[in-house]
Amino acid sequence: MRTLCLDVGGTKVAGAIHDGALGEVRRRLTDADPWQTITEVLDPLAAQGIDQLGVAVGGPMQWPEGVVSPLNIPAWRDGFPLRERLADTYGVPVRLHNDAPCVAIAEHWQGGWGVDDLLGMVVATGVGGGLVLGGRLVDGATGNAGHLGHFVVDPDGPPCGCGGRGCLEAVARGPAIVAWAQARGSRALDGVALAKLAAHGDPLALQAFARAGNALGVAIASAVQLLDVRVVAVSGGIAQVPSVWPTLRRTLAVHARLSFARDVRVEPARLGPEASLLGAAALFEDRYWQAAD
Amino acid sequence: MRTLCLDVGGTKVAGAIHDGALGEVRRRLTDADPWQTITEVLDPLAAQGIDQLGVAVGGPMQWPEGVVSPLNIPAWRDGFPLRERLADTYGVPVRLHNDAPCVAIAEHWQGGWGVDDLLGMVVATGVGGGLVLGGRLVDGATGNAGHLGHFVVDPDGPPCGCGGRGCLEAVARGPAIVAWAQARGSRALDGVALAKLAAHGDPLALQAFARAGNALGVAIASAVQLLDVRVVAVSGGIAQVPSVWPTLRRTLAVHARLSFARDVRVEPARLGPEASLLGAAALFEDRYWQAAD
Repeated sequence: MRTLCLDVGGTKVAGAIHDGALGEVRRRLTDADPWQTITEVLDPLAAQGIDQLGVAVGGPMQWPEGVVSPLNIPAWRDGFPLRERLADTYGVPVRLHNDAPCVAIAEHWQGGWGVDDLLGMVVATGVGGGLVLGGRLVDGATGNAGHLGHFVVDPDGPPCGCGGRGCLEAVARGPAIVAWAQARGSRALDGVALAKLAAHGDPLALQAFARAGNALGVAIASAVQLLDVRVVAVSGGIAQVPSVWPTLRRTLAVHARLSFARDVRVEPARLGPEASLLGAAALFEDRYWQAAD
Repeated sequence: MRTLCLDVGGTKVAGAIHDGALGEVRRRLTDADPWQTITEVLDPLAAQGIDQLGVAVGGPMQWPEGVVSPLNIPAWRDGFPLRERLADTYGVPVRLHNDAPCVAIAEHWQGGWGVDDLLGMVVATGVGGGLVLGGRLVDGATGNAGHLGHFVVDPDGPPCGCGGRGCLEAVARGPAIVAWAQARGSRALDGVALAKLAAHGDPLALQAFARAGNALGVAIASAVQLLDVRVVAVSGGIAQVPSVWPTLRRTLAVHARLSFARDVRVEPARLGPEASLLGAAALFEDRYWQAAD
């Protein structure tokens, strides 16, 4: 089966055909009109012939109907009928899920971890997660299980885009890390620049990523003890920044103390930036899709 | 089938026969030798004739082997082979699980909530939880899923019995609430006395329970957004104290802001103190038991 795979993020849209393996990936920066960007990415791929279409997209959403309103895509704040529009436009069965669950099932499917209980995380423009428990994707009552970005890591912490306060995402998402450093005098304009400064030993940049690592450690400790997973696979740009990890591990060691939680493996995800696209293809495996088509 | 049900807690041991409905419950205070207490409770019930034996007991444990080392039973800190000892002693199949998962499956089985996604909590001597997701009990990789008591609600908070810091249990378990009030001058000797003071408007007692309610609200908000459950059923003595609830609900409303999380029902559990025993019986239903016998 030739699966057209689509990954819709707050900053980038990517597409590729999966046919046993993932083909060449087309990428575009997300436009003010995200649907326009999507068709530009998909049209040339669809023209090569496809059987089905899998989609990874930011939450929350009405699932499995696929009316999406990702926090990081303002144009769709009121809900965009993505699944229906794609089915109408490309004329094939469409399955879709939140991007972080897609990363989680991709890591479980192709990451070679050898476990049945895995928490997949994405730490990038947003912070999300996906739960594979007992070898199956956990959808939740409304398809929104896995929103680890809204774990409260500091009840009196900074306001979050969700309307809450002190969420993991409000501390550890890329733009929040940069904003925190800028407010303390850093001239870094974005996460990539801040990561370069950290690599060169800039104390403020190091502190900014350490603070994110600490928040991640708190949330992961809580999640591991709640879920009893064996692996936490962390993907996204922030997971690539080395200075995040020592604090993450130190904080995790302080807080994940129950016997079964101490030996959890928390590691960078193995599949790289194509994980979401692979996950979109994995949605056509039964153990990862429990909804009606 | 006549199921002998056993509930082993840090303070009490209870037993009853379930045969369509739960029979008369025998209770004893947990002795320094908990096995002694257990046989005193079970022997007269077993003598009436039983087919199988279900057990709810505090975690963590080696599961499904049933070697238990509950944090609140010091005599078993190094691990007690409860499942094996019970099978040898009573000669029937034995299934066991952590007490909070037992409460969760009991609420799902008999609570009439009408949902497939439910978080069950116990807030008593300890704080635990159990996850029913998609209509099935989630065990976790080692049978320890549901340890919500070790959610970090205050990273710089008080030390916890698990060796960590700022866990929900370190703030909201009964003895911690009482200790907090005593350290500020309260003369209440236990949770029952402190709850009476709160009922009469004592400001310090009210503050002590409000602080626990706040911690519960933080943890429940995080859990609901991670798990996408429709119902959180809270059992245990603390859930019976009215002054816990206004703060719990206020904090929950501050932190559970994603659209799918806002209308979650967080309510006192419906089954009362017999929930653990009913859950022990429910372990013989297939959807709640995925392990080998």
